[in-house]
Amino acid sequence: MKKVYLLALVMIFAAVIAGCKKGEEAPAASAANATQAVAAAPAASEPAAVVDELKPTQDELIREARNNFEPLPLNVEEGYKQLKNNTPTTEKLELGKMLYFEPRLSKSQLISCNTCHNLSFGGDDYQQTSIGHGWQRGPRNAPTVLNSVYNTAQFWDGRAGDLKDQAKGPLQASVEMAATPAYVVEVLKSIPVYVELFKAAFPGEADPVTFDNVANAIEVFEATLLTPNSKFDQFLRGDSNALNETEKAGLKVYMEKGCNSCHAGINLTSDGYYPFGLKETPEEKLLAGDKGRFGISQAEGDEFAFKAPTLRNIEYTAPYFHSGLVWDLRQAVAIMSSSQLGIELTDTEIDQIVAFLKTTTGEMPKVEYPVLPASTINTPKPTFTID
Amino acid sequence: MKKVYLLALVMIFAAVIAGCKKGEEAPAASAANATQAVAAAPAASEPAAVVDELKPTQDELIREARNNFEPLPLNVEEGYKQLKNNTPTTEKLELGKMLYFEPRLSKSQLISCNTCHNLSFGGDDYQQTSIGHGWQRGPRNAPTVLNSVYNTAQFWDGRAGDLKDQAKGPLQASVEMAATPAYVVEVLKSIPVYVELFKAAFPGEADPVTFDNVANAIEVFEATLLTPNSKFDQFLRGDSNALNETEKAGLKVYMEKGCNSCHAGINLTSDGYYPFGLKETPEEKLLAGDKGRFGISQAEGDEFAFKAPTLRNIEYTAPYFHSGLVWDLRQAVAIMSSSQLGIELTDTEIDQIVAFLKTTTGEMPKVEYPVLPASTINTPKPTFTID
Repeated sequence: MKKVYLLALVMIFAAVIAGCKKGEEAPAASAANATQAVAAAPAASEPAAVVDELKPTQDELIREARNNFEPLPLNVEEGYKQLKNNTPTTEKLELGKMLYFEPRLSKSQLISCNTCHNLSFGGDDYQQTSIGHGWQRGPRNAPTVLNSVYNTAQFWDGRAGDLKDQAKGPLQASVEMAATPAYVVEVLKSIPVYVELFKAAFPGEADPVTFDNVANAIEVFEATLLTPNSKFDQFLRGDSNALNETEKAGLKVYMEKGCNSCHAGINLTSDGYYPFGLKETPEEKLLAGDKGRFGISQAEGDEFAFKAPTLRNIEYTAPYFHSGLVWDLRQAVAIMSSSQLGIELTDTEIDQIVAFLKTTTGEMPKVEYPVLPASTINTPKPTFTID
Repeated sequence: MKKVYLLALVMIFAAVIAGCKKGEEAPAASAANATQAVAAAPAASEPAAVVDELKPTQDELIREARNNFEPLPLNVEEGYKQLKNNTPTTEKLELGKMLYFEPRLSKSQLISCNTCHNLSFGGDDYQQTSIGHGWQRGPRNAPTVLNSVYNTAQFWDGRAGDLKDQAKGPLQASVEMAATPAYVVEVLKSIPVYVELFKAAFPGEADPVTFDNVANAIEVFEATLLTPNSKFDQFLRGDSNALNETEKAGLKVYMEKGCNSCHAGINLTSDGYYPFGLKETPEEKLLAGDKGRFGISQAEGDEFAFKAPTLRNIEYTAPYFHSGLVWDLRQAVAIMSSSQLGIELTDTEIDQIVAFLKTTTGEMPKVEYPVLPASTINTPKPTFTID
């Protein structure tokens, strides 16, 4: 205890002095990463729980919002609590971060998880549908990796039960990273630093460099990719002033019209599957001939059904829908209201909902870009051909 | 002075306590980033100059090495001193970092500077020659961006005089990022956060969002991409034990055989142009029909001449030569000795030189992965087609 107290004192002292010198030596806080500075705090120490609590409030809108939504935890390691059969450790976290940014896991050695789930970019790629090996286009828009540990299933059709199961998909998909489990293991075993890092992350395993463990490590890293402390989360915690009047009006319309029937909870999604066109069939091209969950379940009701995606950070996750054909958030809201709710919103209502949705943009993960170990003469060489 | 002294004391104190707690709360220092922890220090405060100095020594090998080489500065901001017509500021640095990682500057919005000059990877891409827009292959192997501010000219043929001039090339090359200056400016002006960041980085300019300023900002960031404190640099500074016996033997052979005639100085390059095959014509396929500097100068002596590249961090910069056809550093050394020096090295000498060359691997830049501002409805959309 004494040590912690002393450390805290020294850190406060250092912070105060560093603060005095700000502008002289500290790197400039740019508009884009100003919020990031705040994000650094929660992960560092324990008192996050105090700030995390919902303050008592008489604000009716906050009270109603709390019946529908939940703020993300400020301490991103809280994401670990969602993991199953994968005990998080700092060794797995560090290894997982490296593997997430590791292009040598792909056949071309050019494409990493971060290519399509870019952490600079709200955890996806601003592409209609992702471009992968050989400049091939994938079939669906890349969902964001951010806060995805809260999804009860992964992919638009929910075919992966968790993130470690999900991670194995793009690694092997011929139009994405185009690798094989054997290739991935061969690459990693050719690099002694990786072998040591796997030993440290999976102690007690006789042969820790496995495809499963690649996925396990990546899952641990991804579990920390939360975007806490959005204006909306501040509002939920009890700060009435965190949203302006337009944003509050948007939140009201959102709940009154029933957007929250599919997009509520901690991640603004029910995690349910709904036919795109529940009430009115949308323009045919938006469906792109993709039957969604039906491809997995073969259940009649699942035709053209997709998992309701998170709406957090939605200003970053354009273009929208599984087909990625809509770039304008206003248009996406209008389409959803007609196709899923069977109603037509006024232009004002759409503007208000969009304003509200933009308040879900949180603090993006702070990630030190990893330095990856050098290849060796035994490392497989990149291949460009499409089989 | 008092403030600095106090800060230093507090930092030492905090470091000691943090050291005691290592393994409890601190993120695990992986084998790959262990050296990075050390790299954090120099940039933070002023006393770098003290550590930078060459200690007096009686070690003959160090003294001879000092006649040929110079260590990189420990404070990466020393790289700024190489800049011309581009005053470095923290605003330019932060903006330049964002632009370096910004895929939206490419036509597909998938390719950034970092795609081919990957900072996880020794500042290049482990590709024979780079893959760019439309999965097209570029004509030459990507040179490393690391320490490149010390090059007197850029590109294998030296056609760019500095990094800001260089940066404009790949942005526009049809097989690389395939953008145009007008497109780049249109993208950036469509994103209000960028407009503000350009105003802050280029104060007093009426219209700061220009293609030139994109290059200026990127150059400032790139000037900091140094890899200080390699074992070889520690040796040069006076630590006789920084190299082992094999590495010292390699350094001796390197200087005795004349490798230093083209690869010496701070960046292990003379920055001169030499025909590939100065003494003996190498295997024809290694030349790949590329006449090198001749394409720029049309001077007869420049046929098949290329700029001698830096050898720093060479274990990271495979494959080797402009044609990128040699993956094995041993083989590359053998080819250089016969083609450029007209000698044949023994296997032992090659092993020793390779061991020495690996001591040039320095501390890789510590970069916080930037969060880029969201696109807006006015931002141009990605395009995949090849014109």
